[in-house]
Amino acid sequence: VFGAGSWGTTFASVVADSGVDTIVWAREPSVAKAIQVSHQNPVYLPDRALAPSLRATHDPEAALDGVDLVVFAVPSQFLRENLRRWAPALPRSAVLVSLMKGVELGTLKRMSEVIEEVCDVPPERVAAVSGPNLAQEIAARQPAATVVACPDLRAAELVQSCCTTGYFRPYTNPDVIGTELGGAVKNVIAIAVGMAGGMGFGDNSKASLITRGLAETARLGVALGADLVTFSGLAGLGDLVATCSSPLSRNRTVGEKLGLGHSLQEIQGSMRMIAEGVKSSESILELARTHGVEMPITEHVVAVVHDGMPVTDAVSGLMSRELKAEVQHP
Amino acid sequence: VFGAGSWGTTFASVVADSGVDTIVWAREPSVAKAIQVSHQNPVYLPDRALAPSLRATHDPEAALDGVDLVVFAVPSQFLRENLRRWAPALPRSAVLVSLMKGVELGTLKRMSEVIEEVCDVPPERVAAVSGPNLAQEIAARQPAATVVACPDLRAAELVQSCCTTGYFRPYTNPDVIGTELGGAVKNVIAIAVGMAGGMGFGDNSKASLITRGLAETARLGVALGADLVTFSGLAGLGDLVATCSSPLSRNRTVGEKLGLGHSLQEIQGSMRMIAEGVKSSESILELARTHGVEMPITEHVVAVVHDGMPVTDAVSGLMSRELKAEVQHP
Repeated sequence: VFGAGSWGTTFASVVADSGVDTIVWAREPSVAKAIQVSHQNPVYLPDRALAPSLRATHDPEAALDGVDLVVFAVPSQFLRENLRRWAPALPRSAVLVSLMKGVELGTLKRMSEVIEEVCDVPPERVAAVSGPNLAQEIAARQPAATVVACPDLRAAELVQSCCTTGYFRPYTNPDVIGTELGGAVKNVIAIAVGMAGGMGFGDNSKASLITRGLAETARLGVALGADLVTFSGLAGLGDLVATCSSPLSRNRTVGEKLGLGHSLQEIQGSMRMIAEGVKSSESILELARTHGVEMPITEHVVAVVHDGMPVTDAVSGLMSRELKAEVQHP
Repeated sequence: VFGAGSWGTTFASVVADSGVDTIVWAREPSVAKAIQVSHQNPVYLPDRALAPSLRATHDPEAALDGVDLVVFAVPSQFLRENLRRWAPALPRSAVLVSLMKGVELGTLKRMSEVIEEVCDVPPERVAAVSGPNLAQEIAARQPAATVVACPDLRAAELVQSCCTTGYFRPYTNPDVIGTELGGAVKNVIAIAVGMAGGMGFGDNSKASLITRGLAETARLGVALGADLVTFSGLAGLGDLVATCSSPLSRNRTVGEKLGLGHSLQEIQGSMRMIAEGVKSSESILELARTHGVEMPITEHVVAVVHDGMPVTDAVSGLMSRELKAEVQHP
């Protein structure tokens, strides 16, 4: 597992708990050492006991030696440059798995597409894992489910078998596009829901934003070739609701602070971890425009986060827009 | 508006705020008097200032005199016996509106069907209003949206025009079946989500229950002739998420207390208001069985609430069942 942030570390611990020999690569040597020696990640996952069998290293080549499965969990915008360094040492037959939830700025590629491109592997060798998976809860070994998406069923089943434990249940789905987009766009919607909460709006408003947010996610997905059904599932609705409900969500937290009137600079200065939605909002909006898809919530998030729109204007803009879409009479 | 519980009172105040002459009928004379005189409902909606123009009465005939629109907001299981008394005085041309979210025990009828039957009116004269509408928030005049469902567009638009305010936005939809079922089943799912919360499960588990809960609601709806799209909208997903997220939800609260190990008798003894899902869970399950639809979450809620299944068995039963439904590879 490449990446020892909260989700990378947690997923590695799940795989180790499933009985598979697992090693995690950490960018920071001190983090690798803490995991290896004391089975903890004090920086990104404090107070959680990791699987005792989980090993860790700071050396990418040691991490890749003889593995059947390589999992990537680095910040989305840094995947490409990291991959370029790792690709030469990747075992030729390994299945590659993305835990990342973003869309690359500039290229507008999903993470599985970046992996395919940089590592020069076919889509059948690349899987995406996504679902209602707040890392803190899974690290506490609370029950959760997820989606393992890959066009090749056997690759999906290999990944599934490597992360099935008593508390973690992965389900396969052939739809990588829908699974990845559900995960990426939900971070943007969570920022919007956070903004509404920060401004003092209650659960009616938040539920309306979630409803309309899933609708715009699905619209984009279908335009890109995803299966509509995926958005009603764990990687769509499930992940969106978990993220928008949880005080543990970084994206929701960023939104809340914006809603309270803080600037993005102040907020990012105070957070150790990266809120993926901040960057991805721009690439997702560009993707939507390229495909002629309307995404009003994403548009307003980009306007606030990147273009200085006052958060009050955004929320009132959304409240008056968001409701066009109920069913027409015949 | 017939019924001065929290939602009936709030909706009446919305209609009055929209500029329409409005009178609310309260079962308890003291409640009618408080609304009429001090523009408050101290029993069911304490600390909220109602529209100053809202009138109230304890006399059903006074409430029905010359009205164009009659709104019903009484507990679902008491609608039929109340309607029998009111029906003779109903103005012949009035549009009848249901705010209720339940399915009648025994007959398995939705509230609009009960109204049609007892009042002997065609479906074109009966509308259902449902959405992410926590009464407390709307009574505080926070922004919210809702669905006005009626097969007749003009009747739907009449209702819509009578409850549109700066903070409340109704959208029309021809699908009464889906709108009513979304509202009714969400109370049952909220009990399940509450149970999981009461047992200490986090947002991943709750989001999975919401996801699978909406799926089983939609399955039942489609079997009964509803439009699948309604369940992705405000009266489906929106209402479900609002109810399951809010500490104000009575159904979620009942579930939480069950999850903490209290008995239904204890819980009902301590609540002034009725949690609709307790009764409706039985009629919804019977409806599902009649139509051959699988509803595992509803089944487990009924087992705990009515048949004494230990809540731990139910939640572990659900956690192992709930995840069959992701997409099959072709």
